Amino acid sequence: MKKTLRRVALGLSLILVSGALAAQVIGKAEDQIRWRQSAYNTMAWSMGRIKANLEGSFSKEQVVQAANTIQAIANSGMGALYQPGTDKGSGHHETSVKSEFFKEQDKVKELAMAYNREANEMAKVAATGDAAAAKIQFGKLGESCKACHDKFRKEEKK
Amino acid sequence: MKKTLRRVALGLSLILVSGALAAQVIGKAEDQIRWRQSAYNTMAWSMGRIKANLEGSFSKEQVVQAANTIQAIANSGMGALYQPGTDKGSGHHETSVKSEFFKEQDKVKELAMAYNREANEMAKVAATGDAAAAKIQFGKLGESCKACHDKFRKEEKK
Repeated sequence: MKKTLRRVALGLSLILVSGALAAQVIGKAEDQIRWRQSAYNTMAWSMGRIKANLEGSFSKEQVVQAANTIQAIANSGMGALYQPGTDKGSGHHETSVKSEFFKEQDKVKELAMAYNREANEMAKVAATGDAAAAKIQFGKLGESCKACHDKFRKEEKK
Repeated sequence: MKKTLRRVALGLSLILVSGALAAQVIGKAEDQIRWRQSAYNTMAWSMGRIKANLEGSFSKEQVVQAANTIQAIANSGMGALYQPGTDKGSGHHETSVKSEFFKEQDKVKELAMAYNREANEMAKVAATGDAAAAKIQFGKLGESCKACHDKFRKEEKK
């Protein structure tokens, strides 16, 4: 009886897990590539805004807007946009992801978690309105972007 | 003396305002168009995720991720990406904005504020994990997207 219950429980949890995964994966390969390119583009815009505020006049409001956008996307679970079969193909343009990305998942996870930490910290620092602290954190956040680009992004075509 | 002080104060505030505006506007016309298309695409992905969760198995985590992304972009001040000269041109593709958008700023503001309210409410409802309430709010959010598309977006080419 206990064994049967355990089997039922295991069966249910497998259904729940696969259900969750099924809900998470949406879009064809080209949609996923386009969505992830869009998300990176939105983060690039936001990084550019923070940089402009650090180099020009500092608006807390704008830095918070940009940092919150980066934080939300960093925490959006966009790993779901790297399904098998999306290592090649076009969204807005040909994907820049290296095939290693799909083979070195532990490294991907490590870099993604480091990025998430820095993005969460950037939003926290932005909320204080401290421009000097924002500058330091912006540097750390940029480094965590670069770490992944260096390892998993192909040279961009000029 | 009072008059002089007032003039200095006015001068300073004009500098502050123009400084803030200068910091806010970054990118060439094609960058602004690409960034706003990317932001809309990221919101479309997130809307699709919420829809999939409402129609399939409901994962609170995924709905929160998607709703927070929509909320952050809705509050990102992306109106700055509609500078004069961006009514025509290409980002990822030719812009779909109607020229009316640049002439009816009061209406734009009204629709944008309604959208912001629904996006903020969506994030709030998602955080409760109440699927039925999320479904209702998702409908309202979708209506507020559509109101702006109907008025200011050209028919998309198939």
